[in-house]
Amino acid sequence: MTQTQNAPARVNARLGYNNYGKAEVNLMKVKRDTERHEIRELQVRVAMTGDFAAAHEQGDNTDLIATDTVRNTIYGLAKEGFNGSPEEFGKELVAHFVKTGPRVTGGFMEFTEYLWERIQVGGQGHDHSFVRQMPQRTGRVESEDGQTFKVTSGIENLYVLKTTESGWANYLLNERFTTLPETHERLMASYVTAKWEYNEGEVDYDAVWGRVYRQIQETFTDHYSPSLQNTLFLMGQAVLTMCPEISRIYFRMPNKHHLQYNLQRFGLENNLEIFHVDPEPYGLMEGWVERA
Amino acid sequence: MTQTQNAPARVNARLGYNNYGKAEVNLMKVKRDTERHEIRELQVRVAMTGDFAAAHEQGDNTDLIATDTVRNTIYGLAKEGFNGSPEEFGKELVAHFVKTGPRVTGGFMEFTEYLWERIQVGGQGHDHSFVRQMPQRTGRVESEDGQTFKVTSGIENLYVLKTTESGWANYLLNERFTTLPETHERLMASYVTAKWEYNEGEVDYDAVWGRVYRQIQETFTDHYSPSLQNTLFLMGQAVLTMCPEISRIYFRMPNKHHLQYNLQRFGLENNLEIFHVDPEPYGLMEGWVERA
Amino acid sequence: MTQTQNAPARVNARLGYNNYGKAEVNLMKVKRDTERHEIRELQVRVAMTGDFAAAHEQGDNTDLIATDTVRNTIYGLAKEGFNGSPEEFGKELVAHFVKTGPRVTGGFMEFTEYLWERIQVGGQGHDHSFVRQMPQRTGRVESEDGQTFKVTSGIENLYVLKTTESGWANYLLNERFTTLPETHERLMASYVTAKWEYNEGEVDYDAVWGRVYRQIQETFTDHYSPSLQNTLFLMGQAVLTMCPEISRIYFRMPNKHHLQYNLQRFGLENNLEIFHVDPEPYGLMEGWVERA
Amino acid sequence: MTQTQNAPARVNARLGYNNYGKAEVNLMKVKRDTERHEIRELQVRVAMTGDFAAAHEQGDNTDLIATDTVRNTIYGLAKEGFNGSPEEFGKELVAHFVKTGPRVTGGFMEFTEYLWERIQVGGQGHDHSFVRQMPQRTGRVESEDGQTFKVTSGIENLYVLKTTESGWANYLLNERFTTLPETHERLMASYVTAKWEYNEGEVDYDAVWGRVYRQIQETFTDHYSPSLQNTLFLMGQAVLTMCPEISRIYFRMPNKHHLQYNLQRFGLENNLEIFHVDPEPYGLMEGWVERA
Repeated sequence: MTQTQNAPARVNARLGYNNYGKAEVNLMKVKRDTERHEIRELQVRVAMTGDFAAAHEQGDNTDLIATDTVRNTIYGLAKEGFNGSPEEFGKELVAHFVKTGPRVTGGFMEFTEYLWERIQVGGQGHDHSFVRQMPQRTGRVESEDGQTFKVTSGIENLYVLKTTESGWANYLLNERFTTLPETHERLMASYVTAKWEYNEGEVDYDAVWGRVYRQIQETFTDHYSPSLQNTLFLMGQAVLTMCPEISRIYFRMPNKHHLQYNLQRFGLENNLEIFHVDPEPYGLMEGWVERA
Repeated sequence: MTQTQNAPARVNARLGYNNYGKAEVNLMKVKRDTERHEIRELQVRVAMTGDFAAAHEQGDNTDLIATDTVRNTIYGLAKEGFNGSPEEFGKELVAHFVKTGPRVTGGFMEFTEYLWERIQVGGQGHDHSFVRQMPQRTGRVESEDGQTFKVTSGIENLYVLKTTESGWANYLLNERFTTLPETHERLMASYVTAKWEYNEGEVDYDAVWGRVYRQIQETFTDHYSPSLQNTLFLMGQAVLTMCPEISRIYFRMPNKHHLQYNLQRFGLENNLEIFHVDPEPYGLMEGWVERA
Repeated sequence: MTQTQNAPARVNARLGYNNYGKAEVNLMKVKRDTERHEIRELQVRVAMTGDFAAAHEQGDNTDLIATDTVRNTIYGLAKEGFNGSPEEFGKELVAHFVKTGPRVTGGFMEFTEYLWERIQVGGQGHDHSFVRQMPQRTGRVESEDGQTFKVTSGIENLYVLKTTESGWANYLLNERFTTLPETHERLMASYVTAKWEYNEGEVDYDAVWGRVYRQIQETFTDHYSPSLQNTLFLMGQAVLTMCPEISRIYFRMPNKHHLQYNLQRFGLENNLEIFHVDPEPYGLMEGWVERA
Repeated sequence: MTQTQNAPARVNARLGYNNYGKAEVNLMKVKRDTERHEIRELQVRVAMTGDFAAAHEQGDNTDLIATDTVRNTIYGLAKEGFNGSPEEFGKELVAHFVKTGPRVTGGFMEFTEYLWERIQVGGQGHDHSFVRQMPQRTGRVESEDGQTFKVTSGIENLYVLKTTESGWANYLLNERFTTLPETHERLMASYVTAKWEYNEGEVDYDAVWGRVYRQIQETFTDHYSPSLQNTLFLMGQAVLTMCPEISRIYFRMPNKHHLQYNLQRFGLENNLEIFHVDPEPYGLMEGWVERA
């Protein structure tokens, strides 16, 4: 605990933006009031902001909420509170910590929801047996005062692919490092991440999520794509059209390249049949689509 | 490249079991002879066995097939050859390398198939747009002579959960380290891995896979489970009943624990509603179910 | 490509913030001008910003740089250009794309550097043989004009643990959901992520990184820690003291909980000897430390 | 719980090879009897074999050890028992379950040990502060009777690379799918997995592990490698030479390809300087080296 003798005197330093809380709290809630059970599974992170300078600078923990308490609270409030969407539950959580923590003034709750469908038996969804789905629902609820909230919702792990109706042409060709030939026929695939913000007013977050999830897939199918960028924009425009609740939407779309394997060397044709699914590198597009 | 002076004389050593080949070859094949395209995506490993002692012991590569050639061959043969199941493609690959490699006498092909479904538009599956599914199909084709094959097929990433109709009781209770109370009502969940072997004769591997995939889920729903072991056995028995082609089936079933969170400390009841989804440790059961 | 008949008219939409480029470009450069070779391995992402509205909104790719070209350029410029730090290489890359792309006005380059040490033979580092290390160096170089740059450098995968000299006490105790007892003796562990910004002026990025990397570890050892927050602050202060080039530093520090396993139930004492290393949930602290 | 009416009668089935137990039990033991603390961290799996047919076939759990008890036992026995190597601890665990479980006749314990080094302060390893290392130690202890044991030890996550002194030539060249040119100068890299078995007699497992770990690296540096296969063999032979306790050793060595990037297209030379580090596919070699 002694300091090295020749160490320089410590500079004056101060705490900048900071937060703390609990991450990767894995919660499942089962609604079992009828024989047809319902389940929701969330991975939750809660972080609090406020006046935590004493803890950082002087090691004074007075009035701090323990992160273990954050965990207990998430499970505790889920019992009576998590009856609607994860976004509404997030509002309740952040409001609770602002009310409870003497030093807490705001914070955020982030979640990933793992989606389950009923197992099909004889063409019917089973009452109490479920199977995990691939796409994930995400969201973030943030507040500076514990009373007004900024909500963002999203989608992850949505992997889509089309085998025709896409190309890439007319780009900058006469350039030293450009060797890629133009094409009007290729495979196009992306591992879509989306997130969106809301206009003011009441929102049925569960209903909106379902609409966005279906619309993104539908728009992906419905046009010749001259670039992933154009498809990104059209998907955003379609979502804004179908969901008046949404103010703007962001996409992160890697271009998962499927490279036609060179079979000519072996005397074989390859008419867009045999592809190397290249894990890296990938083109990566990010963009927001907003109401004009 | 000089050896350390005082190093002991090298012992006599010889090569034991060995193989080599190419792993993680990512292949997509698109069938586009009608407007309704079909796709199959495999991650393939091919390994060859044979007389490779000279390469290992003397550094003599004569007559060895390069692993780069293995890759080229997988893509090359996929063009005309991969028209049915991945298992049949595996037979073709292994047979090819035995025929081609002067030193190759056998080998195996392993695959993971990533599953895609058509995107739904207006209640119809789209002609050329697809969305990735979570479960994966696996398989392994092995041969010692390039002519007769041992085939194993399997399922991975099948995550199932039931909210009632399972328990764990009547086990060894009076034991120093046993603290778990018995229960007749709990959540049960597992991330099922299955693999199975076949009886002799023709097999429609694609059709069998679909039947096993549905049967595992159905049996999971249809009984009160006194243990994951019993459910494992009943799933195996049901598969053997529905699939006469299968000789025996193996399951690896982690017991993904959902622990009722202790809410009593906060004055709240928890009637199997609020759970901590515990990532570790998990009970792990492995077992083969065979025809009696 | 026809639109569904009853679909509502598309709303007016416009492109907001966006960028595109290439991600996960894996580059190794070998310096072999003497017998003592040197290697550097980077995973690079380059993203360009500028006027890309036509591509998104009208599908007009005119004057766009292909992401394949971005990849070629990274490898191409590395040949003559990547002779110093990855941060300097990043500046060169971003400047290049602003100069080259008619529509490009700015962009950023992000990297993860994988670190290699020479294999020890007879107490000496070998001339041309290396072994990968666990910690990773990160960085980001951003520019709005291709001429002035904002540089951030960082550390990932630095996992530290101390078996004494830490505690957690004096926090908010009389609260409904608080059950954790205070402690003045525990294990403390964190998987440290750091990143820092620079003051104006010349910087030797490689030298600074080494100093930060050592200082974080040293400060971790040198005090009784009443909280991870206090340790975070002290580490930041020490870095600012040792590195006048740095203007402020951020830490993301999960509290990797090591829970004393309850052995009393089996008639055994546990004096901070036997721990469950809990993968989740974890306390998570984020904070900036700045010059006062 | 009713069976579908038209379902076929269930076939007779029986249980084949099976086991069960607990996996991913994360244990840290701290030795704090002097001021210079010592730590060991294991991820443990224990599986029991025996007569478990009643549980599987009839749902009769009588005399079964709960997997929760397996977890408790691992932590409980670690308190007094885990004073030497993980392998010796594994023997104790398996013997315990055979003694304790009325139906248990054998089993195995597998571990991954995460390695920590002391943080360096002023050139000295610190008394109680540690930093995680990249390589991992593995092992498996198996017994059919709880009294005699088969022990396997291993290494994972050892990533080595050399920038010269390796090539690949003289292989089968005149073959339809072979396009790779020969080379006598390339980068060679592998992510080495090793495991080895022991001769009868007392073994100091910790000491042997250290010797193997160093020898693999040293041999990797000390010869011109005409193939990864030859290097695999030489490493095995060197280990057998330095470790008379070891009867045979297995390696799994992916050939992590570093592809010279084609810079000629841009008018640049590339004399083994600029490489694409290709994540897939990779050549994969497996082999045992045994005493002749």
